[in-house]
Amino acid sequence: MASKRFLVSFVAVVAFAAAVASVQAADPEEIRDFAPPPNGAAPNGDYFTFKGLRNLDVSTGAFANVTAVNVKGFPALSGLGVSNALLLYPPGSVNAPHTHPRGTETLFVIEGSLDVGLLDTTAPIPTLFTQTLQTGDIFVFPRGLVHFQINRGQKKAKAYASFSSTFPGTVSLPRTLFKTGISNDVLTKSFGVSDNIIQALVAA
Amino acid sequence: MASKRFLVSFVAVVAFAAAVASVQAADPEEIRDFAPPPNGAAPNGDYFTFKGLRNLDVSTGAFANVTAVNVKGFPALSGLGVSNALLLYPPGSVNAPHTHPRGTETLFVIEGSLDVGLLDTTAPIPTLFTQTLQTGDIFVFPRGLVHFQINRGQKKAKAYASFSSTFPGTVSLPRTLFKTGISNDVLTKSFGVSDNIIQALVAA
Amino acid sequence: MASKRFLVSFVAVVAFAAAVASVQAADPEEIRDFAPPPNGAAPNGDYFTFKGLRNLDVSTGAFANVTAVNVKGFPALSGLGVSNALLLYPPGSVNAPHTHPRGTETLFVIEGSLDVGLLDTTAPIPTLFTQTLQTGDIFVFPRGLVHFQINRGQKKAKAYASFSSTFPGTVSLPRTLFKTGISNDVLTKSFGVSDNIIQALVAA
Amino acid sequence: MASKRFLVSFVAVVAFAAAVASVQAADPEEIRDFAPPPNGAAPNGDYFTFKGLRNLDVSTGAFANVTAVNVKGFPALSGLGVSNALLLYPPGSVNAPHTHPRGTETLFVIEGSLDVGLLDTTAPIPTLFTQTLQTGDIFVFPRGLVHFQINRGQKKAKAYASFSSTFPGTVSLPRTLFKTGISNDVLTKSFGVSDNIIQALVAA
Amino acid sequence: MASKRFLVSFVAVVAFAAAVASVQAADPEEIRDFAPPPNGAAPNGDYFTFKGLRNLDVSTGAFANVTAVNVKGFPALSGLGVSNALLLYPPGSVNAPHTHPRGTETLFVIEGSLDVGLLDTTAPIPTLFTQTLQTGDIFVFPRGLVHFQINRGQKKAKAYASFSSTFPGTVSLPRTLFKTGISNDVLTKSFGVSDNIIQALVAA
Amino acid sequence: MASKRFLVSFVAVVAFAAAVASVQAADPEEIRDFAPPPNGAAPNGDYFTFKGLRNLDVSTGAFANVTAVNVKGFPALSGLGVSNALLLYPPGSVNAPHTHPRGTETLFVIEGSLDVGLLDTTAPIPTLFTQTLQTGDIFVFPRGLVHFQINRGQKKAKAYASFSSTFPGTVSLPRTLFKTGISNDVLTKSFGVSDNIIQALVAA
Repeated sequence: MASKRFLVSFVAVVAFAAAVASVQAADPEEIRDFAPPPNGAAPNGDYFTFKGLRNLDVSTGAFANVTAVNVKGFPALSGLGVSNALLLYPPGSVNAPHTHPRGTETLFVIEGSLDVGLLDTTAPIPTLFTQTLQTGDIFVFPRGLVHFQINRGQKKAKAYASFSSTFPGTVSLPRTLFKTGISNDVLTKSFGVSDNIIQALVAA
Repeated sequence: MASKRFLVSFVAVVAFAAAVASVQAADPEEIRDFAPPPNGAAPNGDYFTFKGLRNLDVSTGAFANVTAVNVKGFPALSGLGVSNALLLYPPGSVNAPHTHPRGTETLFVIEGSLDVGLLDTTAPIPTLFTQTLQTGDIFVFPRGLVHFQINRGQKKAKAYASFSSTFPGTVSLPRTLFKTGISNDVLTKSFGVSDNIIQALVAA
Repeated sequence: MASKRFLVSFVAVVAFAAAVASVQAADPEEIRDFAPPPNGAAPNGDYFTFKGLRNLDVSTGAFANVTAVNVKGFPALSGLGVSNALLLYPPGSVNAPHTHPRGTETLFVIEGSLDVGLLDTTAPIPTLFTQTLQTGDIFVFPRGLVHFQINRGQKKAKAYASFSSTFPGTVSLPRTLFKTGISNDVLTKSFGVSDNIIQALVAA
Repeated sequence: MASKRFLVSFVAVVAFAAAVASVQAADPEEIRDFAPPPNGAAPNGDYFTFKGLRNLDVSTGAFANVTAVNVKGFPALSGLGVSNALLLYPPGSVNAPHTHPRGTETLFVIEGSLDVGLLDTTAPIPTLFTQTLQTGDIFVFPRGLVHFQINRGQKKAKAYASFSSTFPGTVSLPRTLFKTGISNDVLTKSFGVSDNIIQALVAA
Repeated sequence: MASKRFLVSFVAVVAFAAAVASVQAADPEEIRDFAPPPNGAAPNGDYFTFKGLRNLDVSTGAFANVTAVNVKGFPALSGLGVSNALLLYPPGSVNAPHTHPRGTETLFVIEGSLDVGLLDTTAPIPTLFTQTLQTGDIFVFPRGLVHFQINRGQKKAKAYASFSSTFPGTVSLPRTLFKTGISNDVLTKSFGVSDNIIQALVAA
Repeated sequence: MASKRFLVSFVAVVAFAAAVASVQAADPEEIRDFAPPPNGAAPNGDYFTFKGLRNLDVSTGAFANVTAVNVKGFPALSGLGVSNALLLYPPGSVNAPHTHPRGTETLFVIEGSLDVGLLDTTAPIPTLFTQTLQTGDIFVFPRGLVHFQINRGQKKAKAYASFSSTFPGTVSLPRTLFKTGISNDVLTKSFGVSDNIIQALVAA
């Protein structure tokens, strides 16, 4: 069903709309050792620790399940220039083509095997780079470029991402292009297909 | 025809693949007044001038015609953090959804009228912002976010873009997603449509 | 009259003194998609649009008329690294020598013809680079260097500037040097002229 | 033996002295999609992949074994602002107090349990923050601050680090202070101890 | 006595713990001319002046006496990327090995003579660079690297430091390692010495 | 005589024109510990030391004598974000109004007394901030803003400058405006004075 297609793969981001005001505006280079806890409490070891990835596991589903560990959920990262995410890929699942507008990503395979792809901006036709990653391999997806992963294996895969920003953002291309109400004329002309095709994509 | 869909709208970028080696690696803040001419000649007034936009005009075509004025064609920009482009929109033409991975864009309408759209990264469904711009209006497309323009008027439109980078790059989404040979399984699963639909997009 | 010499060429900047508190302190790289509207309202298409340049025109006057489109009047630019300005040059008008301390400028001639000049920091005598720009030409003035324009034509000229900062600032040299009350001894010694000369400049 | 104390825990760094010339000078924000392969070959999927962490394991030893995955060994990272390392901790091993001068680190425990500590710059006495991390936990060590880890468990531990730089560097404090030939008078006066104590540290 | 060893050599930093909240979070490039006075008063000549170094002198003591002139005590520096410190070295005094996590330092000898040392991150053993500086000499200590000074002369020495940050921070290594309560097992294992040695360092 | 007015106050900069090619293009944040010596030699203590300020003194002259210590003469500064200068002011001398396009300056008075002035960018009339500095005082001149100094005392004064850049540049306003051949019409119109006045300034 179409609604399942809207499975929220980015758990931490779900709350973004409601909480945008609490995200720090910028990622300037921090001139204090670290930003103090937002609630005014004194920092302690827990402030520098993120414990939300313990015991996460998902073994079914059509899409990768992504838990971001960025400045929004881990305020100690503020101004420190790095963040992470844990990605769980049931067998057959895909992390649909997307970009991270504000950060480069390195992806480290912790378990299983993963097929990945990266597109550059060569014109007129971008170059596609692919790879089958084994456990222990790392792939780099430069800032702002389109990329995706798919788990073609029989077993689940697990990977851990590192970003060059405390809040890199994610532009999910299927949703951004076909679920946001862009006018039909823009879509038919841009993709060079008829209304039917666009309607299938919008209804998916 | 499908091939017409591949009309290169970014004239300066056409040569990118062949000339990538000549593009300066980075856009560090220049500590000299300016980078000297690459050929070793002494700089003069012409070095700081780009004359390539005189008399450009295109009044037919399905896509916007874009002439970039970036560090590749205007080396005096090196390290100086800004670049431009001229966009010509025949009536009915579209500048298909795309992003600029490394720069924010402001678009200034010089002639005619233009409908524009911008998508943010709100999850699960991004927000679409649209506007009908009159001559003299400016719209800002933040770094890395998806945007597009369409000229729904009877007359041609002309706009001038400013970027916060000397080489912001362009990720054209129709071409990047459907003309680069991404595997069918990735596409059908990501967009939630059948093979036929994907084939139509690839063949467009 | 001397007062006419003080014609405020930078319309948006006129209010700077009163509104400095409302300008964002810094231009850090925004880690959100964009800064939300300062008044707490939800953003819409209008938030990303600047409509203040419609129908601007000035055909007489001794000085260029400049309308800045920077973060102060266009808050959506916040953290996004680029801003603009529209410059209108009546015949015979000049944009007196000035610098932009915090940004590089590219100037695009939209109408008419313009003579421009740029000075570098070569010592002991800086090099002067000049150019006569036709409609469609672009000239780059690197960050912090002295430059000027003059319209020696019979018709008005119009140009559009792009800056590598959301608030580059402008240091107008005639006013900064001779209208601010710098002591006479500093001026006579620095410029190597007698009191009479300095008095003429101060009284201008 | 003292020589065992000099076990090189940073495998990739061992080659630094010989290869410093090949490290890119700076980590400017890349304005191309990515830096091309240094050998002039065309990039392919392998260029963006680092396969050197497959099958690494160390189960004995007094010190953590660290394999850095930075721009030196993974040139595709050039200009992209992020790098990684894999750390293997035999039971009882320590990663001696050190700093990363040019990057913040987040440390993700992949296996086992780890005790970590971080010191800030509070004066006169810095504050020590500690934590016992379980598998799945992440701890952040801000740029330039002293930190350490110790595996007090019976089983080996494994962790994966992310850095906000393509070459953050490591200042190992025991070696830097006591193995580099700093004069005795500097050390006795700085640490407020007698020659014997310093000699013990130097001979360790 | 041990307490004398805790002589606060960094006068301005003494108040850090109490005043951390008042330090500006980051050192973004200021887009205003300067940050206005924190108390809301109009700026005047005094706002841009720091008068706290007049008549400072110390001619006895085991440690260098350092007065920092950074954004905390000189708010006009906010966002401007530079700060300073005055260092007074009684004969025989030492400025114990330390790092500045967030800034490079240049040290200018104003009076007397000073022996200095700098350690890089070469592995396995860092390289020690030393110099005897005469009055008028400058030495550079790159960001984040360990360095120290000692006045082996009969007369006092005086030096003035410049930093590439408005708040570079100082990591004093003797205090950070041995006065903060790091567990004994971490210290004995890291330094490869017995408990007695560590106890001597802790008790110093 | 006019030619004496052209006294080169910036000694190190005199050689700029001939040596511009040797200045490093940019001041990116260095990702190595430091840039190695340009001649390929191994670094030693001397590489990190600048000895060119020993015994400098000037007690007569109309203008301040400035010796820059920047990356051009001190290559070890490369990528490290800070540089310095020594300024010697005979009695009655002036450091004519100028800007540093690429860096903020803090000025520390080492000897004597100095009157300083700073102009901001308030429109229409910038604000002038002045101060009489005593020995030991520091004044900050934000990046890109016009400033000057004058020694109104009977004794010479000496000051040491710190910059937030390894090569901040200097725009000397009397020379840039009146010694570079800017056309007469630009000058008379910009300053609002007659040809005679401009001629006096040009001939000075």
